[in-house]
Amino acid sequence: MANEGKDNPQVRPIRLGMVGGGKDAFIGAVHRIASRIDGRYELVAGALSSTPEKALESGRALGLREDRIYASFEDMAKREARLKDGIEAVAIVTPNHVHYPAAKEFLKRGIHVICDKPLTSTLPDAKKLAKAAKSSDALFFLTHNYTGYPMVRQARELVGNGDLGKIRVVQVEYAQDWLSTDVHNKQADWRTDPARSGIGGSTGDIGTHAFNLVCFITGLTAESLAADLQSFVPGRQVDDNAHVMLRFDGGARGLLWCSQVAPGNENNLKIRVYGEKGGLEWHQEDPNYLQFTPLGEPQKLLTRGGAGMSAALAPTTRVPPGHPEGYLEGFANLYNEAADAIRAHQSGKSAASLVPGIEDGLAGERFIDACVRSSSRNAAWVKLDG
Amino acid sequence: MANEGKDNPQVRPIRLGMVGGGKDAFIGAVHRIASRIDGRYELVAGALSSTPEKALESGRALGLREDRIYASFEDMAKREARLKDGIEAVAIVTPNHVHYPAAKEFLKRGIHVICDKPLTSTLPDAKKLAKAAKSSDALFFLTHNYTGYPMVRQARELVGNGDLGKIRVVQVEYAQDWLSTDVHNKQADWRTDPARSGIGGSTGDIGTHAFNLVCFITGLTAESLAADLQSFVPGRQVDDNAHVMLRFDGGARGLLWCSQVAPGNENNLKIRVYGEKGGLEWHQEDPNYLQFTPLGEPQKLLTRGGAGMSAALAPTTRVPPGHPEGYLEGFANLYNEAADAIRAHQSGKSAASLVPGIEDGLAGERFIDACVRSSSRNAAWVKLDG
Amino acid sequence: MANEGKDNPQVRPIRLGMVGGGKDAFIGAVHRIASRIDGRYELVAGALSSTPEKALESGRALGLREDRIYASFEDMAKREARLKDGIEAVAIVTPNHVHYPAAKEFLKRGIHVICDKPLTSTLPDAKKLAKAAKSSDALFFLTHNYTGYPMVRQARELVGNGDLGKIRVVQVEYAQDWLSTDVHNKQADWRTDPARSGIGGSTGDIGTHAFNLVCFITGLTAESLAADLQSFVPGRQVDDNAHVMLRFDGGARGLLWCSQVAPGNENNLKIRVYGEKGGLEWHQEDPNYLQFTPLGEPQKLLTRGGAGMSAALAPTTRVPPGHPEGYLEGFANLYNEAADAIRAHQSGKSAASLVPGIEDGLAGERFIDACVRSSSRNAAWVKLDG
Amino acid sequence: MANEGKDNPQVRPIRLGMVGGGKDAFIGAVHRIASRIDGRYELVAGALSSTPEKALESGRALGLREDRIYASFEDMAKREARLKDGIEAVAIVTPNHVHYPAAKEFLKRGIHVICDKPLTSTLPDAKKLAKAAKSSDALFFLTHNYTGYPMVRQARELVGNGDLGKIRVVQVEYAQDWLSTDVHNKQADWRTDPARSGIGGSTGDIGTHAFNLVCFITGLTAESLAADLQSFVPGRQVDDNAHVMLRFDGGARGLLWCSQVAPGNENNLKIRVYGEKGGLEWHQEDPNYLQFTPLGEPQKLLTRGGAGMSAALAPTTRVPPGHPEGYLEGFANLYNEAADAIRAHQSGKSAASLVPGIEDGLAGERFIDACVRSSSRNAAWVKLDG
Repeated sequence: MANEGKDNPQVRPIRLGMVGGGKDAFIGAVHRIASRIDGRYELVAGALSSTPEKALESGRALGLREDRIYASFEDMAKREARLKDGIEAVAIVTPNHVHYPAAKEFLKRGIHVICDKPLTSTLPDAKKLAKAAKSSDALFFLTHNYTGYPMVRQARELVGNGDLGKIRVVQVEYAQDWLSTDVHNKQADWRTDPARSGIGGSTGDIGTHAFNLVCFITGLTAESLAADLQSFVPGRQVDDNAHVMLRFDGGARGLLWCSQVAPGNENNLKIRVYGEKGGLEWHQEDPNYLQFTPLGEPQKLLTRGGAGMSAALAPTTRVPPGHPEGYLEGFANLYNEAADAIRAHQSGKSAASLVPGIEDGLAGERFIDACVRSSSRNAAWVKLDG
Repeated sequence: MANEGKDNPQVRPIRLGMVGGGKDAFIGAVHRIASRIDGRYELVAGALSSTPEKALESGRALGLREDRIYASFEDMAKREARLKDGIEAVAIVTPNHVHYPAAKEFLKRGIHVICDKPLTSTLPDAKKLAKAAKSSDALFFLTHNYTGYPMVRQARELVGNGDLGKIRVVQVEYAQDWLSTDVHNKQADWRTDPARSGIGGSTGDIGTHAFNLVCFITGLTAESLAADLQSFVPGRQVDDNAHVMLRFDGGARGLLWCSQVAPGNENNLKIRVYGEKGGLEWHQEDPNYLQFTPLGEPQKLLTRGGAGMSAALAPTTRVPPGHPEGYLEGFANLYNEAADAIRAHQSGKSAASLVPGIEDGLAGERFIDACVRSSSRNAAWVKLDG
Repeated sequence: MANEGKDNPQVRPIRLGMVGGGKDAFIGAVHRIASRIDGRYELVAGALSSTPEKALESGRALGLREDRIYASFEDMAKREARLKDGIEAVAIVTPNHVHYPAAKEFLKRGIHVICDKPLTSTLPDAKKLAKAAKSSDALFFLTHNYTGYPMVRQARELVGNGDLGKIRVVQVEYAQDWLSTDVHNKQADWRTDPARSGIGGSTGDIGTHAFNLVCFITGLTAESLAADLQSFVPGRQVDDNAHVMLRFDGGARGLLWCSQVAPGNENNLKIRVYGEKGGLEWHQEDPNYLQFTPLGEPQKLLTRGGAGMSAALAPTTRVPPGHPEGYLEGFANLYNEAADAIRAHQSGKSAASLVPGIEDGLAGERFIDACVRSSSRNAAWVKLDG
Repeated sequence: MANEGKDNPQVRPIRLGMVGGGKDAFIGAVHRIASRIDGRYELVAGALSSTPEKALESGRALGLREDRIYASFEDMAKREARLKDGIEAVAIVTPNHVHYPAAKEFLKRGIHVICDKPLTSTLPDAKKLAKAAKSSDALFFLTHNYTGYPMVRQARELVGNGDLGKIRVVQVEYAQDWLSTDVHNKQADWRTDPARSGIGGSTGDIGTHAFNLVCFITGLTAESLAADLQSFVPGRQVDDNAHVMLRFDGGARGLLWCSQVAPGNENNLKIRVYGEKGGLEWHQEDPNYLQFTPLGEPQKLLTRGGAGMSAALAPTTRVPPGHPEGYLEGFANLYNEAADAIRAHQSGKSAASLVPGIEDGLAGERFIDACVRSSSRNAAWVKLDG
């Protein structure tokens, strides 16, 4: 309940701005809901669109005060930084190519950044952003939102506790079907446009989620990969299906499949991890469950909030087991943890959190880059830090 | 996005008060989250506990202004009704026996009521409340929240469209295991105390949800039932398991099982409806899916937001198919629809909505009463309106 | 491998005759396959049809020697009993009304009987058959075949070992959809004809399986029931849907649903058992798995042949876990155990087995009779031994 | 029923011999059951073990006549070929390295061969066996048994009918956990011994099944692959986990994972096929179902024997939908089709069948060889016919 305050100074919501997320956007509304669920943020400013008219219209529709509706993120960064009650954090929910220039503006003014993934549209931008983040006092959060699901956290704890033993094999996949044809709409257009999305198509849009999830749960570092990328839909300029073999330090191996042309798949993100002592499986479309099998024993079904779940995960769940939480609640967990970190930072305390950050974003960009490099060399093994 | 406004007068959130929902409560937080998800409400006042100290502490924790924290619902009703910016609606989330006295106070002052289920702790109270609601200009909403799930709405549409033909058989169950032993905590205590919960135990707490769901989806009216109620845990004063046979007008038959002593069940609410032309199945614990089988054809898997779903249901979903929504989003759908109705009512327009109301609550009380009457007469058939 | 002998005298297959099971029959072929799977039987004689021409044609199609093809079961019983290498056992796979007269003929000649369920078409016949069986030296087996599934055996062991504690609640259902309309074919015709099938429709055909499964797994005795039977398809003379409340000795309660008019259900036989200490669930359509939840622990998934399965069940499985066995293998388990019992009996040893027998058949007939009696008295409670 | 004859000359069972399958063997019993289920074969001779004593003991246990129990397959081939009622077909169920020498002996004497997979233990042996098969008049069948499952046939029909459009992506996996540790028993020992099993471990034992299944369902030809093979268990001489990227003619791509060190997997063989117009999914551990999603429509659940299943598949099922058939019945389907082909061949008719044969076996060996070659070259792409 402590999360829910409004006017109580101790529980006062964080003043949040937003870049992107205007009319016809998708992920902006998700960020707004996620920020609202537990009452930790209040949206007070926005540069919601790249066209001033739409920005105004969108800001009004959200009930923003007109003087807090901006025509550009530059304007917003400059003015909000000077306001006494200016935004404390900004959510960047634009197409990928805007992430870097926008984030830079806020970071350099000490405004905390919550940025959608992937980090940027190019690896050089990512490196520059990493520098910017390191030289800023502000915090940087990257919404690899699947890390916010309680059962993903539980999986991470099982691996961390050694319940699976040394990890040998990881299988991860993220399959969709919405780009099976040459579809055109706002979402499809920018996500298949290398100028706005980056050189990775499915690899960038969903492959990075899958890759991040592997790293988050297992703690392993991917050393090299071999990738076979395809663009099945004629004329498509980025990959829409990717097969990737992974090698991790310590000897574990992985297989990653991402696809946007697999009919019957909605947001089929699934991960399986196998170690010397046990295996686990988690499925994003049925996220309240985690299958855990200690080698030689029956499979156990762990449930969100149920028996056998780590007590440390209590803050990531809201309702009793059997009452499903979903995508938005997982997303909200990241927003809450970012809020905790921001408040701690403001009090001069440690701002450590499990929310993915700049390094994870950089790793994701390296993943995309390595996939494209490998594929262009007939799926040769390439280093991720190459 | 139109739901998300704050300061825009057209999209200004509804000022909400809350009765109950203080420290250690469960359902209050659920109502608060549900009210917040889509930004349609702002919690501004509360009488959050029956003890003044706790009420104050709870109100502060939620960030309420001190002058809007009340020691009793009577105080809150009186004062808020006089305030210029007083609450427009109140959520009543207390134990059942307080529903009637509290709701009455707000209804008679024209403040809209959003009340948790079951309607009241006794059938006479329910009848009095029904009278109070009818004589009030204010609206009354009952949070049989499972009706807010999009796939429940889809099921209702399939039946309504005749896709199942004339309904013959309904199977519904709601099973839990948390009362399998003589457990004692705040939730268990009041829910097994006839003075606070009412004469129905599992029948009142979860059976009414199951019963309501049948009525909501099928549109059928239950005429009579035969119930065999048990209190398996020694010393328990209310039923913790119930087997109920149902007869509907038009000849359909049903079977209802509710239990709080079924190990391995968390919130296993499941409904299956069979008609002359097809059958459907929905499961609350995996709520984004609906199985529909036209007789003689393969089963179809309908998904929230996916192919084959009614376009009319778009406002009840937030994220694309495959990104699960859950219990809180379903709950929020009711809050949103209540907000629509309240705003319509304030504008003098029709306030019709699918949110369950006073008649549904009365039906639920009649269901509890009939279960207990039947069981006390060795499971004889009794009329529901008896 | 010891089960597979042919000419080895120690492993010589049992000489089997068959009554019924000619052209267009269904269950006869199932019995033949079940008898063949492990090589314990050899079909050598048959009275396969009630019409001599069809009997001859059917016998030839099965490759029976012409002198072992009989026009009637009476002829077969008389002659085979006199042959030196006459049948040692007979499978009776006719419509229900023939079970009694046929079984009687073989029992009185010392030929072991393997009879399909339900025991007879009337309760008086069942009582007479029970007498006949008791006064015969021959063994009598009733193919309530679902008791042959390994995971059903595992469920029985869990209950027997006290892993669920004292049983409180049983939920069982057997739903089909093939009689949703006024269909006519050989199977539908006799199964909906009271003269051939008996007074129970769905209760007799599949309800008895469900009832038997409850008794087999839990060891409980049903004392009384209240049944609401329907014939939804116009003109149907027997029930096609039944809702039954059960009371067991010791206080456990049950709910049984059987239906042949539930679109989307093929052979949906499912049982759930809940006790003070745990719960279990088994589903016939996915029979290699058993969900077992000790109260307060995560659910465990037991698999046929897998970790945690009772070693005693090894003889009921043939292939490793993950290679599914099904309906025919479960049926074959009963045939094998009957073979063991027959060989033991021939050696003068104990012929005890888990295969259902005459008492189980009598219990099934009492169940049908009680359902019809109760339903005709408006679902009043009736004793099963009434 | 026509399959079930014994003494009827038209339906007389085929006289079968067996090489391997003695005490402690696993797959021999599977072949015997598969041959027995529908009564199309009679086992009359065997060279069941490499040690004469065990061969005799095993033959007796199976009830074989002593003069048909052989100490070696050479003896059996020679003598049976001369007997008037000698075996018409032989099942070869030994470790892989014996497949070639044994099969050769029978083929050259005109005795039909039903051989377990993979074809041989080396690619040169496979090529020699292919020559031997081509120069023999006898038929050669390879028990890639998963092709016998009805829903696999249905999947093949859907692809063949164009219901998925042009195939783009195939995902296949076969995961087990029984070799997660350095286990030693008869099965583990020969399957991890290159001298008996061949150079492929998991690739040979289960990868070939997965590979064959892809080819069988899609009709695609794999042109090249890149494989990353691991031996996770210290000291293991063959791979126990393999990640394989596949390229098919026509441009489709595939990903194949096989593993014997994945805790929680029993025989998790799963295939998913995606084309321009739809996708399908089949899971061996729940084999009576096939998920088929036409692009833009709800997923359909096809069931064995149920609505929407191809009428041509009727001979591959025995019992109604909802009564599961499994591994042994799928295996038996191959035996039945081999029997049809043998009888047709004996009558001088076409012996075409869907049972995998010598070319499929050769393709499997090329798959193993390519996996090992590729992996030894750091997962470089290699041709399968290289």
